[in-house]
Amino acid sequence: MPHKLMSMERAKPDTKTIRPFMLAIAGDSAAGKTTLAGGLVEALGEDRSTSICTDDYHRYDRAERKELPFTALNPACNYISIIEQHLQLMATGQPILKPVYNHDTGALDRPRLVEPKEFVIVEGLLPLHTKLMRSCFDVTVYLDPPEEVRTEWKISRDTKTRGYAREQVLAELERREPESEEFIRAQRADADIVVQFAPIEGRDDPPDTPLSATVLLRPTVPHPPMVRIVEDTTAIHLKMMRDDDERPVDALHVHGYAPDADSRQVEQRIWEHIGLDLPMPSHLGALGPGKRSAPLAVTQLILLHHLLSTQR
Amino acid sequence: MPHKLMSMERAKPDTKTIRPFMLAIAGDSAAGKTTLAGGLVEALGEDRSTSICTDDYHRYDRAERKELPFTALNPACNYISIIEQHLQLMATGQPILKPVYNHDTGALDRPRLVEPKEFVIVEGLLPLHTKLMRSCFDVTVYLDPPEEVRTEWKISRDTKTRGYAREQVLAELERREPESEEFIRAQRADADIVVQFAPIEGRDDPPDTPLSATVLLRPTVPHPPMVRIVEDTTAIHLKMMRDDDERPVDALHVHGYAPDADSRQVEQRIWEHIGLDLPMPSHLGALGPGKRSAPLAVTQLILLHHLLSTQR
Repeated sequence: MPHKLMSMERAKPDTKTIRPFMLAIAGDSAAGKTTLAGGLVEALGEDRSTSICTDDYHRYDRAERKELPFTALNPACNYISIIEQHLQLMATGQPILKPVYNHDTGALDRPRLVEPKEFVIVEGLLPLHTKLMRSCFDVTVYLDPPEEVRTEWKISRDTKTRGYAREQVLAELERREPESEEFIRAQRADADIVVQFAPIEGRDDPPDTPLSATVLLRPTVPHPPMVRIVEDTTAIHLKMMRDDDERPVDALHVHGYAPDADSRQVEQRIWEHIGLDLPMPSHLGALGPGKRSAPLAVTQLILLHHLLSTQR
Repeated sequence: MPHKLMSMERAKPDTKTIRPFMLAIAGDSAAGKTTLAGGLVEALGEDRSTSICTDDYHRYDRAERKELPFTALNPACNYISIIEQHLQLMATGQPILKPVYNHDTGALDRPRLVEPKEFVIVEGLLPLHTKLMRSCFDVTVYLDPPEEVRTEWKISRDTKTRGYAREQVLAELERREPESEEFIRAQRADADIVVQFAPIEGRDDPPDTPLSATVLLRPTVPHPPMVRIVEDTTAIHLKMMRDDDERPVDALHVHGYAPDADSRQVEQRIWEHIGLDLPMPSHLGALGPGKRSAPLAVTQLILLHHLLSTQR
């Protein structure tokens, strides 16, 4: 049985209409969006949370896209005004009849009814593309692995589960690169939290060292009190720096090479600060059987803090 | 080229958002909804008008419905809350991603983008089922052929274009009857206009006499000034009577046996009262090659008067 936080309480709205907490997870193909979102839904329980994907709003199926001068990353390839409309409907507690893109067949299938839940997690290529979309979210995340890491993740997934050959994946990545830059990576500037997976500079760790990450916590929303939380730890440290646009930002460095126990100490402190009288979900950070990522666990805990904290 | 009323002008809204004129055409399967709606779209032009069908909002495909204890007529078989939502969106000038039910295959296909136009015609089994749906319309119509007439229409259509055998259609009609009564015919009471096709009582016309009709014009909305329009004609007469609920109503009797010229005189008068400086569209009342229904033509003209009159 997955760990469910069924007994947790958020402040209940006055009326019967649910006004969901809306979380966006944006990022390029194979950046880890589904892994991050899935871990959150597992922690919250499917009765309280739902996850939808904006890639379902493709205008064209795979065969039609072959004839087009742009890729699925392009806003022109997606029903942007309907994404905006459906995000507004969800944010105001209304159901939607969501289109469905079938990643296995490349077809546009019959739509599916999505009822609002207390937590709505919206992941995809373009959830932060327009101002109206962004205005629907309480917290926004951008997943930002280095391109060489993302390439390996995409090859691994698309060859194993979507039936592509390695060369096809590489050719597709090259074809998509200009639109990745123009439309997908452009969203990085609009996220409250940016997870930059990357080796820590100046180290020469062995190749099987877990990925390190820098979690940028932009002061666009309140975050957990990380200064106190990382006090006297070595696995994770916090550094105030200037963002690309020169504005102050907190950069949380999560070292992949640090001992597991050190990272878990910080995770436990974030969990305790949420203020629930429950044990921490054990699956956080899970990447698969026996594989665990401390940066993923820390990111999930920061997001659970946003979703669940009783201290707001 | 179909006749297009492209140069006609309705009062333009102040803003760029279109607030469409919303017309509902409700009725049971094979009651003539598509024929009526199609003639209106042809008169108005596809640039100014769009027609959608609420039967596209089926929850289940044909195979799934076989396992269910209710038919497609049942609100439980349809996404009622999404019909309500989409009607509200259309009425306020917003696009929708409309589901698509494929009558040929019985499958639920990929959805289709529908942009608002100046006139939105919504036909189907259940467009008047809830108060919220009804509140979205400017004018509502219920098509009410006698069951024996509708049975012949349904057999003719379903055996010719949908691949059913006569016995299958009859069995389906019998299976649907309780839900026809409970959900479809229940909407008759909520229409501004009810078209009751039926032989005029007390006559013994030959079998190929065109169907007569009584067009009930309920005083729930203003109608064309029919008292003046039918003055000194014999093909059509108007009678004030009590509706099923005892409220006063105008009953316009359109005689199928009357000479064509008599009916056309009344049609021409309704047309002229709309106040457009254009010839009357010639296709009104058309049922197919060489087949014409005076009651259909009169109903279409009364609706065009609602849609286009410059005298409001």
